[in-house]
Order: sequence, then C-alpha cells, then structure tokens
Amino acid sequence: MALWSGRFEGDVDAFTQSFGASLGVDKVMYKQDIAGSLAHARMLAACGIISDADAGQIVAGLKRIEEQIDAGSFVFDVADEDIHMAIEKALIEDIGDAGARLHTGRSRNDQAATDTRLYAKALNALLMERNCALRHALLDVAIAHPGLIMPGYTHLQHAQPVLFAHHMLAYFWMFCRDFARLKYAYNAADVSPLGCAALAGTSYPLDRNMTAEELGFASVSPNSLDAVSDRDYILDLEYACAVSMVHLSRLCEELVLWSSTEFGFITLSDSFSTGSSIMPQKKNPDFAELIRGKTGRVVGDLVAMLVTLKALPLAYNKDLQEDKEGCFDATETLASSLHCMAGMIAGMQVHAEVLYSQAKKGFSAATDVADYLVRKGLPFRQAHEIVGGLVLLCEKQGCGLEDLGLADFQQACGLFEADIMGLLELEAVVAARATFGGTGYEAVAMQLEGAKQRLAKDSAQL
Amino acid sequence: MALWSGRFEGDVDAFTQSFGASLGVDKVMYKQDIAGSLAHARMLAACGIISDADAGQIVAGLKRIEEQIDAGSFVFDVADEDIHMAIEKALIEDIGDAGARLHTGRSRNDQAATDTRLYAKALNALLMERNCALRHALLDVAIAHPGLIMPGYTHLQHAQPVLFAHHMLAYFWMFCRDFARLKYAYNAADVSPLGCAALAGTSYPLDRNMTAEELGFASVSPNSLDAVSDRDYILDLEYACAVSMVHLSRLCEELVLWSSTEFGFITLSDSFSTGSSIMPQKKNPDFAELIRGKTGRVVGDLVAMLVTLKALPLAYNKDLQEDKEGCFDATETLASSLHCMAGMIAGMQVHAEVLYSQAKKGFSAATDVADYLVRKGLPFRQAHEIVGGLVLLCEKQGCGLEDLGLADFQQACGLFEADIMGLLELEAVVAARATFGGTGYEAVAMQLEGAKQRLAKDSAQL
Amino acid sequence: MALWSGRFEGDVDAFTQSFGASLGVDKVMYKQDIAGSLAHARMLAACGIISDADAGQIVAGLKRIEEQIDAGSFVFDVADEDIHMAIEKALIEDIGDAGARLHTGRSRNDQAATDTRLYAKALNALLMERNCALRHALLDVAIAHPGLIMPGYTHLQHAQPVLFAHHMLAYFWMFCRDFARLKYAYNAADVSPLGCAALAGTSYPLDRNMTAEELGFASVSPNSLDAVSDRDYILDLEYACAVSMVHLSRLCEELVLWSSTEFGFITLSDSFSTGSSIMPQKKNPDFAELIRGKTGRVVGDLVAMLVTLKALPLAYNKDLQEDKEGCFDATETLASSLHCMAGMIAGMQVHAEVLYSQAKKGFSAATDVADYLVRKGLPFRQAHEIVGGLVLLCEKQGCGLEDLGLADFQQACGLFEADIMGLLELEAVVAARATFGGTGYEAVAMQLEGAKQRLAKDSAQL
Amino acid sequence: MALWSGRFEGDVDAFTQSFGASLGVDKVMYKQDIAGSLAHARMLAACGIISDADAGQIVAGLKRIEEQIDAGSFVFDVADEDIHMAIEKALIEDIGDAGARLHTGRSRNDQAATDTRLYAKALNALLMERNCALRHALLDVAIAHPGLIMPGYTHLQHAQPVLFAHHMLAYFWMFCRDFARLKYAYNAADVSPLGCAALAGTSYPLDRNMTAEELGFASVSPNSLDAVSDRDYILDLEYACAVSMVHLSRLCEELVLWSSTEFGFITLSDSFSTGSSIMPQKKNPDFAELIRGKTGRVVGDLVAMLVTLKALPLAYNKDLQEDKEGCFDATETLASSLHCMAGMIAGMQVHAEVLYSQAKKGFSAATDVADYLVRKGLPFRQAHEIVGGLVLLCEKQGCGLEDLGLADFQQACGLFEADIMGLLELEAVVAARATFGGTGYEAVAMQLEGAKQRLAKDSAQL
Repeated sequence: MALWSGRFEGDVDAFTQSFGASLGVDKVMYKQDIAGSLAHARMLAACGIISDADAGQIVAGLKRIEEQIDAGSFVFDVADEDIHMAIEKALIEDIGDAGARLHTGRSRNDQAATDTRLYAKALNALLMERNCALRHALLDVAIAHPGLIMPGYTHLQHAQPVLFAHHMLAYFWMFCRDFARLKYAYNAADVSPLGCAALAGTSYPLDRNMTAEELGFASVSPNSLDAVSDRDYILDLEYACAVSMVHLSRLCEELVLWSSTEFGFITLSDSFSTGSSIMPQKKNPDFAELIRGKTGRVVGDLVAMLVTLKALPLAYNKDLQEDKEGCFDATETLASSLHCMAGMIAGMQVHAEVLYSQAKKGFSAATDVADYLVRKGLPFRQAHEIVGGLVLLCEKQGCGLEDLGLADFQQACGLFEADIMGLLELEAVVAARATFGGTGYEAVAMQLEGAKQRLAKDSAQL
Repeated sequence: MALWSGRFEGDVDAFTQSFGASLGVDKVMYKQDIAGSLAHARMLAACGIISDADAGQIVAGLKRIEEQIDAGSFVFDVADEDIHMAIEKALIEDIGDAGARLHTGRSRNDQAATDTRLYAKALNALLMERNCALRHALLDVAIAHPGLIMPGYTHLQHAQPVLFAHHMLAYFWMFCRDFARLKYAYNAADVSPLGCAALAGTSYPLDRNMTAEELGFASVSPNSLDAVSDRDYILDLEYACAVSMVHLSRLCEELVLWSSTEFGFITLSDSFSTGSSIMPQKKNPDFAELIRGKTGRVVGDLVAMLVTLKALPLAYNKDLQEDKEGCFDATETLASSLHCMAGMIAGMQVHAEVLYSQAKKGFSAATDVADYLVRKGLPFRQAHEIVGGLVLLCEKQGCGLEDLGLADFQQACGLFEADIMGLLELEAVVAARATFGGTGYEAVAMQLEGAKQRLAKDSAQL
Repeated sequence: MALWSGRFEGDVDAFTQSFGASLGVDKVMYKQDIAGSLAHARMLAACGIISDADAGQIVAGLKRIEEQIDAGSFVFDVADEDIHMAIEKALIEDIGDAGARLHTGRSRNDQAATDTRLYAKALNALLMERNCALRHALLDVAIAHPGLIMPGYTHLQHAQPVLFAHHMLAYFWMFCRDFARLKYAYNAADVSPLGCAALAGTSYPLDRNMTAEELGFASVSPNSLDAVSDRDYILDLEYACAVSMVHLSRLCEELVLWSSTEFGFITLSDSFSTGSSIMPQKKNPDFAELIRGKTGRVVGDLVAMLVTLKALPLAYNKDLQEDKEGCFDATETLASSLHCMAGMIAGMQVHAEVLYSQAKKGFSAATDVADYLVRKGLPFRQAHEIVGGLVLLCEKQGCGLEDLGLADFQQACGLFEADIMGLLELEAVVAARATFGGTGYEAVAMQLEGAKQRLAKDSAQL
Repeated sequence: MALWSGRFEGDVDAFTQSFGASLGVDKVMYKQDIAGSLAHARMLAACGIISDADAGQIVAGLKRIEEQIDAGSFVFDVADEDIHMAIEKALIEDIGDAGARLHTGRSRNDQAATDTRLYAKALNALLMERNCALRHALLDVAIAHPGLIMPGYTHLQHAQPVLFAHHMLAYFWMFCRDFARLKYAYNAADVSPLGCAALAGTSYPLDRNMTAEELGFASVSPNSLDAVSDRDYILDLEYACAVSMVHLSRLCEELVLWSSTEFGFITLSDSFSTGSSIMPQKKNPDFAELIRGKTGRVVGDLVAMLVTLKALPLAYNKDLQEDKEGCFDATETLASSLHCMAGMIAGMQVHAEVLYSQAKKGFSAATDVADYLVRKGLPFRQAHEIVGGLVLLCEKQGCGLEDLGLADFQQACGLFEADIMGLLELEAVVAARATFGGTGYEAVAMQLEGAKQRLAKDSAQL
C-alpha cells in the first residue's frame, strides 16, 4: 500500500502502478538518496527536531539498506513507486517510528531534486574526466606526427596543406569548449534544494546550510517554488552532452572518410572495427559510425526535456518525473562515446605517406602563388584571377602547378620570377603560415604548448 | 569469438563489445528473427539452394531455440552482438553444418531490416487497437452526457457555449487522424527487404516473393541498396506516435485544468490520481501530467532518428543500428499512454452542474446578440461594435448580458425588441448552431452517428 | 483602429501591434483569402443570408482588391494585424455596408484555417511537381550509363560492385516515398473548415458543402472545435518536407564525397559550383552542401510546430498563429532544394573510368568467392572464414584477389578449381545478382521499367 | 560577375544565384563587416603589408559605404552573394586598386566568422538588457503586493498558501539563470577568428592581437581550422534563447490561466490583449499565448543548428551559411518576447481579493495540521494518514478544514488541542515557513533583498 494512500478509497491497479512508477529509472540514485537522508536526519537532530536517538537509528538503518542494495539483496517492489518511497518504507519496516520521522520537514519534491542534482554532478564529473582523456589522446597523436603534412579541406576540397597535428588540435579545442560547458552544467547542478519541502518551505526550523554542506553543495536555492520545479541543470547537462556528441560526430565523419579505400589515410585498430556477416573482406569503422549515429539520441534527449518543460506552470508537476531517463541516457551515451573515441584515436595507424602525397594534389599552393603576386605589388583580387587562370590551364593539361614551367607562369603574368618555383613546395607553403593559430611549424609547436597547459589546468579541476 | 572474425587478428575488448552490441535492445525481436529465418530456410530448400534435410534440421532447431527463449532458458551472451548472431550461433552449436547453411544468400543487413519491419508492424497493430479503444471511451462519455452544456473556449476565455459531447468529439476526430497516420506507417513497413542481402542482392536464385508471402508482407522492395538503408518506416511510425502524443497532451492539459479547484469540472477516479508524500489533502491528476510530460520523449525519439539519418551515404551504415531503441520507446510510450487515457476518460466523474453554471459566465451569448442585429439588417461589423459596448457596460455593473433589461439593449441600439431576451438562454444559443459540424443538438447527434460509423470502419481493419 | 476594438479603452502601442501582427507572413495568402471570401459571399447570397446585390458588390470589390495587390498598389498597414483584416477593411472602405456584411457567419478562426489549407495545398502541389522532376533527372542519369559499374558501399567501405544506375535508382525510390508522403499531407489539408466560425458553428443557415465545393475541398470538417484548432495538416506537410530534406542530405553527402579529389567520381557543372574568395583553384560543391545544411532548418520547422502544439487546450489559441512561417519556410526550402538537386543531377559529369577502376579495389568479389565454396558444398560460415583468410593474405602482399594465382586459392581450400578465376571479374560479380531488386543487369533493367511506370503514374496525379 | 569567377567557364543562372546567396540575411551585419574591414586595413598598414596611403583610401571608402547603407541609398545586388562581397565590390568600384588590396591575408571564412561573432555579441547584449528589465518588472510587482497570499500549486492543485511575491520571485530566479547563460554565450562569441584566413592561417605577417583589440574581442582563437568551422557560439546563444523562451512559456501559461473566468486572478492591460472578429465580449491574453507559441520556433532554431553541424568534416563547409538566420530569429524572438513580458507584468491588474479567497480553498493548511501532530510526538507518516482522513471527511461534508470543530479533530486523533484552530489561518500557515527560501514573510523579505542585489550586480555588467 502506497505511503500516501490515506486519502484514497479506490485501488491503483497494476498497470497504472507500473506506468506511473519511476523506480526502474531512479533506483540507480540510491546512494544519493541515502546520502540525502543521512544529511537530513543528522540536521533534524542537530536542530532539535528529532531526537538524537531517532537520528542514530535512522542513520544505522539507512546504512544497512545501502549495504543490502550494494549487495543486490534488497528487494525492489514497483508498488513503492520510486527509490525514495522504497527506501523509506524499508526503513520504517526495519526501525519503526523513528523511520517514520525521517520525512519530517521534507517532501519528495525537494528530496527527488536533491538526489537528481547529486547524481547529475557525479555523472558530469565522469564526463569531464573522459573529456580530458580524449584530449590527452588527441595531443599524443598530434605529438607523434610532428611534421606530417596532409591536405587541408574546405568544402571537402583540397584547399591548403596543413599539419596533421594542426588538424588534430582543431578537435582538441572543440573538446576544450565542451569541458567548459560541462563545468557550467556542473555548477548549475551544485545548488541544494533540500529544505524547500513540497513548494513553500517548511514550518520546521531546518538548517538548510548544514545539509547543503554535508552533501557538498556550493550553495542553497533562494526560492522554494523555483527549487522544486527547476530542471535547468538537467537541460544544461543535456545540452553540453548534445554539443559534445555533435563534435564527436564531426570527428567520426572524418575517421570514416579516412578509413575508406579512396582516402586511405588511416587504419583503425582491430579493436575498433568489425567485419561483415556476409562479406569476408570487410573491416568496418563501426564504432565511428555508431558514435555518429548516437548523436541523434542525445539531441533527442535534449529536445525531449525542452518539450516537457514548455508551458508548465509552477511548481512541481508530474511531467517533471520525465527528467531523469533522458539525462541518464545522454550522459551515459557521451561517457561511452568519449571513451571509445579516445581508444580509436590512440590506436589508429596513420598512413603518413598517403597523407603527404595527397597533399600535393589539388593545387594547394594556389593561394601562395596569388600572395606572391600581391607581394610584387598586384592587388589581391587581380592576383586571384590570374592564378585562377593558371589552375584552369593545369586542369586542361592534367597536371599540377608544380609541373608548369616558369614560362607558363610568366605568360600568365610578367611579375613572376624564378623564385616562384620554390614556393610551390608543400613544406614552404606550410612554413609560410606563421601567424598565431596558423599551421606553420612553429605556430603549431606553440599551439601544442598552449594545449598542454590548458589540459593540465582542466585536469586539475577534476 | 564473433562469427565474422576470420579477418581479424586483434581482439575486441569487453567495452567495445558491449558498446557496439545491440543485443540488449533487439532481443525482443527474437520471434521475428526466427520467423524470418524459418521463411528463408524453407525458401532456400524450395529453390534447391540447400537440401530439404538441411532445411528440416534448421526449422526444427530454430523452433527449439524459440521455445528456449520463450521459457527464459536461453542464455544470451553480449559477445554475440545481436539477436541474429545469438540465434545463428546457437543453431550451429545445436545442428552443426546445416545451421551454418542458413545464412546462405542473406546478410545481417537484410535480416535486421526484415525483423525490424515485422516488429514495427506488430507494435503498430497494438497502437491502432489502443487508438480505437480510446475513441470508444470518448464516444461513450459523449453519449453519456447528451445535452450537457459547458463553456466553449478560445484563448482559454469563455467564447460560446458548446455541448460537452461536442468537446469530447473534437478529440475523437483528432484520434481518427492518428489512426490514419498509424495505418500509413503500417503500410510503409509492410515491404519485404529479405533477399537483398548486404546491399546488392545475391548470386543465389532466391524467391523473394515466397519469403515475403510467408512473412505476410504486402510487397517486395524494388532496390537492394535502398532496402538495406531505408528507415523511413521507422520515421513514419515515430512521427505518427509523436503527433498522437501531442494530441494526448492537449487532452491531458484540459484534464489537469478541469481537475483544478478553480475549474472543478471533473474528478478523476482514484485509480488515476495519486497523493502527496507531505500534503495529506492532495489528489493529483498525475497520470494526465505524466502523459503530457512523456510527449517530450516521443518528440525526442523522432528528432533522434532524423538527426541520425541526416547526411548518411548509401547503403548500410552502423549508424542505422540506432533505429530500434527510439522506435520501441516511442511506441511503448504511446501504447501505455493511450491505454491510460482510455481508462481516465472512462472513469472520470463529470460535474455537470459546474459545467453548466460556468457556461453562463463570460457573456457567451454575445455573438448571438450581434447576429440578432444582423438579422435586423445591421452590417455585422456595426453589430459587433454595439455588443462590445454592452459587454463593457455589464463589466462595469458586474453582471451578465442576461441581467440587463430590455431598456439597456434598446438604448444601445434601437433595433432590439423583446425577443432578444429569449436568445440569451444557453439552450437557445446552443440550438442555434445547427449547421454541419456545429454544436447544435441535432448537429452533434449526427456527428455522433458519423463517429460511430468511422470507429466501426477503423476497428474492422484491426 | 482595429475592427474588434469596440470593447477596448486603452491603446495598442506600436510594439505590440507589430509583435502581434501576422500580416508580414500571411499576406502571401491574399489570393486564398479572397477566394475564400468570394465563395463565402456567394454562398451567403445563395442561402438568402445577404442580398444578391450585397454579394455582387462584395465580389466586385474583392476582385478590385485582388487586382491592386497583384499590381503591388495595395497599401498594407501593420495596424490591420493580418491579411484577413487588411482586405476586409479595404472592402468596407470601398463599398461600405455591403462589405461589413461579408463576415456574417464567419470568424477569423475558420477563415484563417481555410486560407492556410488552400495555400498549403498549393505549396504541396508544387512540391509534388518538383519531386517528379527530380525523379525524372535521376531516371535520365541512370539510363545514360547503362552498364557502368561502381563500388557499392556499406560503412563507406567497398562492399560489392553495383551498377551506377542501381545506385541512382535507390534515390529514385526514396523520393517515391516522399511523393506519397506529400500526397498524404495534401489530403490532410483537403478538408474545409469554413462555416465552423469561431469554435461552435454559427446560427446562420450556411451551406458548408457549397463553399467547400467552390474552393475545391474534398470534404467538410465534422467538428467545429477541432476544425479551428487542428494544425495536423501543417505537421504532416512539414514532416513530409523534413524527411525529403533528409533524403536530399544523403544524396548531397554523396555528391560532396564524389566531387572530392580522393573519390573523383563526378564533376558538378559550373552552374552548381562556386569558387573561393582567397583560393583561386577551388571549385566547391556549394549547392550540395547548402541543401545538406538546410536539412537542419526544415527539421527545426517541424520541431517548432510540435512544440507549439504541445499541451494546447481547445479550441483556437493565439499560439496557432505560429503555424504559417515555419510551414512556408519548410516548403520553400524543399521546393528550391528539389529544383537545385534536379539541376545538379542533370548537369553532373560522371567519370565512368574512375568509378570502374575503383570498383576493382577493395576485394569486392570476396562474397562471390565464398558463395562459390558454398555451391561446392561448404557451409557458408566456413566459406566466409576461408575467404577472410585470403583477403588477409592479399593485404599482406598488397594485391587484390584477382592477382592471386589458382595455387593460392587451392592452398586455402581444396575445393577451388580453375573456374574461380572467371568469377573475379566485376562484370561476372554484377551479373550474378539476378534476383528481383538486385544489381544484376537484367534486374536493373526491369527495375528501370518499374520506375518509369511509377513516375508516369505519380505524374498523372499532378 | 562574381569576384571569384576567374576559374569558371559556365554561367551561374538566376535561380542558383538567389538560392546560394546569403545577402538577404547577412546584410544586417554591414556595420560589423565594415568594422572588421577597418580594423583589418589598419592592421595591414601597421604591419607594413599595405601602404598607409592604401589604408587611408580603404578607411575613407568604407566609411562612405557605411553612410550610404545607413542612409538606405546603397544598392544591394543579389549577384554579390553576401554582404562581404557587396561591400568589397563597391569599395573596389569606388577606390580601385587600393580596394582590391583589402582582402590581403583574409578569407571570407574568417571574415564571415568575425562579423557573425560581433553581431552575436551585440544581439546578446540587447538580450541581457531586456532580461534585466523583465526582472525589474517582476521585482516591482512583487514589492507592490507585500503580504498578498495566493494558493501555491503543485500538479495545478492547491497545495499550500504562498505569498504572491514569492511566486513572482520564482520567475525572477529563473531569469537570473537565463542571464548567466546569455553571459556564457557572450563569452563564447568573444574570441577573434580574424587572421585565420581560409583555414590554415596566412603567409602575411598579420598581427591578430591588434585586430582583436580594435574590435573589442577578449581573446584570439588558437587554431585556424577550428576558428573557421566553429559555430559553438551560435549554439550557445540559441540554447540560451531556447531555455529563456521555455521559462517565458511557463509564465505565459500562468498568465493565461490567471486571466480565465475560472481563475480570475488578473486582468491584463488592454495594451496586451486583443478582441475577437466575431465575439464582441472577448478580451484575449493574446500576447501571453503568442510568446508561449513562439517557444516552438526558438527550440526549432536550436535543433536546426545542431542538425546542420552533425557529421560535418573540417573545416569550412557551405552548410555553415545556415548559421545566421536561425540565430537572428531566435534572438529577435526572445528580445521581443522579453520586452512584451516586461510590459505585461508591469501593466497587469492583480485581483488580490480573488487570490486571497482562493487560497482558503483546497485544504492548504493540511500539511501544517500534520506537522502539528508531529510536534506532538507522532511520526510524520502516521500524522499524514490522520490528516488524509480529515480531508476525506471535509470532502464528504463539502467544507474546509477550518469549518470542522475541535471535536472533529479530536475524534481523528487525541493529540489535537484547542491551539490547532489558530494554525488553520492562512497567515499563520504562511508565517510558519520561515526557513531560507521559504514563503514566510521575513524569508521573502530577505529574498527580495537578495534579488535586488543580484539584479544590481547583473545590470552593472551591461
């Protein structure tokens, strides 16, 4: 029989019990629920609201229950609706009246919010750790290939040659932003709603700061109505997950492209590839595809919560019970995806010779040829047009810019001199991009230093 | 060891195995997988591709496996990746070489698509049934309150009085459209991909029509590349679910409003209400809120699949493995929500006297007063303005239009005569709306007849 | 001054006027609004509700207004709120009292719904036409390259060779399903709400069938509350657009891949490429990228409407004013994208020799080698493993299966005989896939016939 | 003729020109584009890359163009593709070769990113200002009704009485979080990509810090590939908008409810209400509905960008052109909505007597009665059950708890004494909730102080 059933005459049948229950989802938060109850009980005693003896019994009883759940011997019954009721009922069965005093000055509304915030913080901490591990793997692979040149792309067309390390570092900085977003979401969750009771606060002289401190919350929520209906911290966390999955999907897309016969840039390790049930030759970049595909579900989780919250009046409404499942799904998906990606990056074999030889294709020195003319005094727009003509000439002849003779260049524009030929080397093109953030050798070395420092700083926050 | 591991030298560790596996999700389709394999094996024998003896062994072996899974005695191992591999491996362990011949001319790509389509059809059939049951409940409650008048709302303001039955029937027609959308999705799934193999068809002389017929598919897919990469039938089903959840959320919103102290229109049965852990007096419309809240997750499921499919090249990619979980979630959520709503509607207590007395408030006869002036020859726009003035007068006097005297009317406009007073009765206002689809008594009676016929027709399709 | 301002004492300031107005969006529907008013006026006269003389004046006046808007000489004033008010006010200014009688028995609620449905039908008709044009282009390009072989991909890995025509036809069938979905949405819109007035019907003896018939609606809505609050036809249209954009994004992804230096399969025509402001050599597949990018906005439009409708009580609420902008955006985006894609497909240059030579790479005959062993009596799973070993051997030697000698084959398995060498030819591999829907030459020829018939049938519905 | 057309032989027809152009959308950024070009030109001269004379001409020319656009006399031509090309072409036409030198060491990729970041910062600053103005209005209305008691709701059921000020402040804190989220998005945009050129940096010795400083950016992006493809700052801004719209939708929902006949809590000012075209008595809370409805489009804008970014390889792709329209729509929608809401809150008439009398209904003292028993020594769970029984008794008798006699209480539980009767007063119930964040009089006064300080602190950041 439900704990709140005093008022009811009818009976709740099996279907509604199961449909309305959140126990299947929220039981993973049992440690948070027990921690919250321990803090609440101690505070109640410290404030003289319950006796020390009752508090002692409650603490001991809750610890016994935690051990049972840890050990898998606790029997969950869907009739208990949620983890809060399940534990409280077991406590009352165990210790009697003292257990029935635990819920004094508390409601499931603030209790559930407290548990969920604590759990969200724990999930978030894991995500931040995994984020750092992936960035570590990216740094390692960048460092492992110091001078390797590859084609740089825009519109998936060869644009200008770049260092492979520069390309990998582009993702490093994306994931830096993801770390900051996770941290923001962590702070959003780091506010204690405990003591707000159902919606209005409570008539017991609770010490909210005491429970907040014991539970490790940074502050206490200033408005009880808001405290029980606020799910922004869920949105913030899901949003951080969604953006990070989108970033992973971009990297996955490249890993899939690079693994193709046509690109042939990398070979993923066997640990991160799978075969085909019918085609014996296949070695598929399954995990890169899977993460890319899972981006959808995490975006979906975020949308779900936004839809659920839309047009919801104050304060707590049962709609909010839908907060957890999507949040857990989003965080678990991201945690696994980050872990998997770190492994893929660490284990992939980079075919340096393919990258380098591809970089030669596609007229990637064209911008530098135009810049050469600019330095000779030609306005950029005219230089651009002249080099466009040279490229057209190459295409008709089926060759690259480096295959043209000096005469060809001079026919296109009288400003070309013999030194143009040296500019066409990949290494020269790369080295020229020496400004901060550019792909020049030293610029990338500096960038690497900055990245290491940033990672060290972020890791120190874990 | 995975069945496709011939090519691999490295080892797949526990994390990737579990991250890449879909067994936890797709094992619910074991009956569909076995049905597909039975049809495939019989066809292979009929076409002379495998021997009748082998086919016989396969059929018997598969049936044994099905019994084991039914009985819960089959041991699933995440190392088997998915339900297809799990069953095939067990079959080979059981019957040896004959079992190893089952996968002839088939790939997991067409096999998984076949299973999912069969399963989607089954889920959809349940949804159509539940949709009819809810419409039945709506018809019943409409019929149970034949002449009951309630306020009709626009902008949540009293607009014109309507019959309660008319209001309930508005939802009936929404759910009619949902049935049609489900049917559309059913037909979208009703195409057999079996025999398309990995992506290109197969070199075995399969009879695709034979397997399609045995499995109850209406047709056979015309292009093998499309067949293994098409997930439109998932989208169509998820979309149908999302719209239906949005419709349910609208009805839920009204049930929540109507259950409030301020409206007081209905009392939900105890079976569909719950109490508070702290406030002893509460009787909350939890299930209406819960369904409303779950609208988010189903919209999220649809978005997830659209995101997953975006920019995916042909043909099968592992991203598509993400097709099932959201689809199962969306359909199960809708199935439960429809069932729950049917119960809520059937069990709710309608406070007829409150509805009727509320209908009197809010100047709901105002349009009819304006129409009266129009029939006396005044252009509608002028009549509208005159009645606007009368309403303002009432508001200042704190009364209703029916509380004004004939003199007040005549002072506002000389065209008013004594017969205006009869027009102000709710029953007269309702009765006047006699056009097809209107809220007039006979119009609603006709509408009810149409609704019954429509439900009978739809139910006949189940 | 607003037409409904009789009741108001305060003033509506410029900001709210502009924020609340929909005129900027809905004025594109002026022809539909006028058509609806013409039908309504004629019906009012036919039913004796207004005089023939008044109706005549209204009809003439509305036609004058239409001519003014056509000519660009009509002055729109945001103070008129929406197109309905703008036209009605101009009519009253023009013809006086007769104009003020037009709105008899009608509300903006049913008027706006009528206009939007008519406009949605017109937009949809254009989409169906553009859909057929794109399918036509796909058929043409398939027919233009009858026997061309290309690599067939799964997981973006070479899987088995397929006909280029087969690959193009895969998209043909996707767009067939889109046509059906558009048709479904068209039918959803094809129901007349006119005569439902504000929410409850009207007290005037309207003939709803008469207006529905004049306006070309297939039927009349059965419930007035539902009629003014139903936006399912918007959702259905936006959903059809979203799925079609997702399909286009898949084709775009391939066009971008195929245009890359690494693939080199196609060259898009100059009309559908653009250059770079800085890199003179660039020729970017901008339009394929742009369409792919626009997929987001159309998915967003669908989500927007689902969110707007969630938890909205009956009947009309101002939230519904948000129905049009997203719908117009989605349909216009799809219309342009279909048109652009048809042009890109028609104008692209296919590099047959590259496709063919790539098809030889990646062990695409591996499945057939396994199938060969199966035909020799080996169970498929063992054959799969043996060929996996042969592929590994090739990879180590840096060659293809066709470069192995018979001895290599026979060392792997004694069942290989000399005829295995013929099987390794691309043409043989393709020809072998002769089942319905497969990539075999005749199967694809049959498929082409089916596609032509389907397109003819769909085009006949335009 | 397009500036990049040197390489092209074919012609771009009118359709593709218009479909591919972003000018219609991005021309609102002309001031940002000119500011960016001014900074770039000055830096080029300072670094000796162009002459001071050229820089002087460029600066003067750009200022002339800005004046023309300000004055509306600049002629935009869709053939110019985007605002960057339009301005550069005009500059070259005006000043010749010097103008053609402006684009030295720059690409549209970093130029567009720079403009968009500057514009996003400006939009964001307006949003933060409007956010503060709304919070100001909420504070004012809270202060204006110091002791007013209203029903506090959970599940839209009367739960416990709360102060009206407390309810208003709940929204204050929601919007505080929105301010922080906007600030986060502002900082995300506050990084200069200028100098990253197309994707790889540039061979000119630019001073990126100099342009960043002139343009007011807080820092310089560390990786050129990331800089041109990063749209996180758009996502962050759209997300902040989406959450804020969801919060507004919650407040709108309450304004709509409170404006209904059934609640009757408030009357919105005429400036924020509209009438009906058919029903003369209507006064609709149109603007609250409209904002609620617009929540959908902003959620849609966020989803659109997430979809667009999914699976996009590095670096710039044309898909990214879709970044602006949704962002501008989201920010403009939120800006208007915040402004409108501030006006509605400031102008609404609060019917204090209705709020107070409603607060008496619904057994809102029930929790306090249970707490009374707890203080008498009863465990909370037993107290809860006893009071549940008292509520059931009241419901059967059709009365409130305050209408019961002491005998009724004592019959339910012997622990009740005469002092229970004083506890049933609304004022006593409210006063009892004295803990931090509760609805007690002093607690709310303290909360108000905190809110004022917070608003002052946030306003100081504008």
